[in-house]
Amino acid sequence: MRKIEHIGIAVKNLEESNLLFEKLLGVPPYKEEAVESEGVNTSFFMNGPNKIELLEASDSNSPIAKFIAKKGEGIHHIAFDVENIVAEIARLKNEGFTVLNETPKKGADNKLVAFLHPKGTNGILVELCQEIK
Amino acid sequence: MRKIEHIGIAVKNLEESNLLFEKLLGVPPYKEEAVESEGVNTSFFMNGPNKIELLEASDSNSPIAKFIAKKGEGIHHIAFDVENIVAEIARLKNEGFTVLNETPKKGADNKLVAFLHPKGTNGILVELCQEIK
Repeated sequence: MRKIEHIGIAVKNLEESNLLFEKLLGVPPYKEEAVESEGVNTSFFMNGPNKIELLEASDSNSPIAKFIAKKGEGIHHIAFDVENIVAEIARLKNEGFTVLNETPKKGADNKLVAFLHPKGTNGILVELCQEIK
Repeated sequence: MRKIEHIGIAVKNLEESNLLFEKLLGVPPYKEEAVESEGVNTSFFMNGPNKIELLEASDSNSPIAKFIAKKGEGIHHIAFDVENIVAEIARLKNEGFTVLNETPKKGADNKLVAFLHPKGTNGILVELCQEIK
C-alpha cells in the first residue's frame, strides 16, 4: 500500500464528466480506455502522484450500471498501488480480509488488480493494483 | 489541485476502524483529533504522499451521523491539496462550481478548507485544503 493509485468514480456520461473533471482538476484526461470484460469505458486524469478514473457503463449488465442504479453517481472504489500484488493478497487474507480475486486479473491502465470485499472494509470497495512491467 | 491530500471515510466506531485500517494500510494512525465545530472525532493514516482520514460522529447532529444514517459507512469526501485556497475558490466559482464555504474555514490536521457542492461534481463531496503555515 504505497499510495492512492487512483479513485474510481462512477458516472452516467463519460463525455460530460470528462469536461467537468477537466474544469475541476485543470487538466484533460490523459487517456480513455474501454475494458470490455468489465463492461466499462474509462478515462484517466493525472493529479500529481495520483489519478482519477472515471467509469461509464458500456452495457446495462455492467457492475457500474448496477452501482449507479442503486447508489447514483459517485465514488466507486479506492485503488492502492502495491509493489507485489500476490504478496499483498496473501498478507491481507492472513489479516482476515476477504479478497474477491485470489488470482489478480488484468485491469485498465496496464495494471494487475484484485478487489477486497467492502463488507470487511467499512463499506469501501478497495482495489489493489500493480503496474505490469 | 496538486494531489489527493486525503480521502475522508465515515465510520461508526473510530477505535474499531483504526484497527481495521491499521491492518489494511500496515501503519497505525499518526494522530487523532476532535473537531468540535464539526461534531467529529478523526484519525489520520499516512499512505505515501496521501492520507486516509477516518471520521466518527461525536454527537447525533453531526453531518457524519446524518451521512451514516442515510448511506451507511463509507467514503465521505475527497480532499485535494491546493497551494492557494482563495485563488482556487475563485477559479472554481468562475468555472461554475458551487462553493459551500466562500471563506475557507479551519479544518482538522492544521488546514484551511472549503467544500464544493456534490450536485455539481457527479455526487462527490470535494474538499479543497491548504496547509496553514
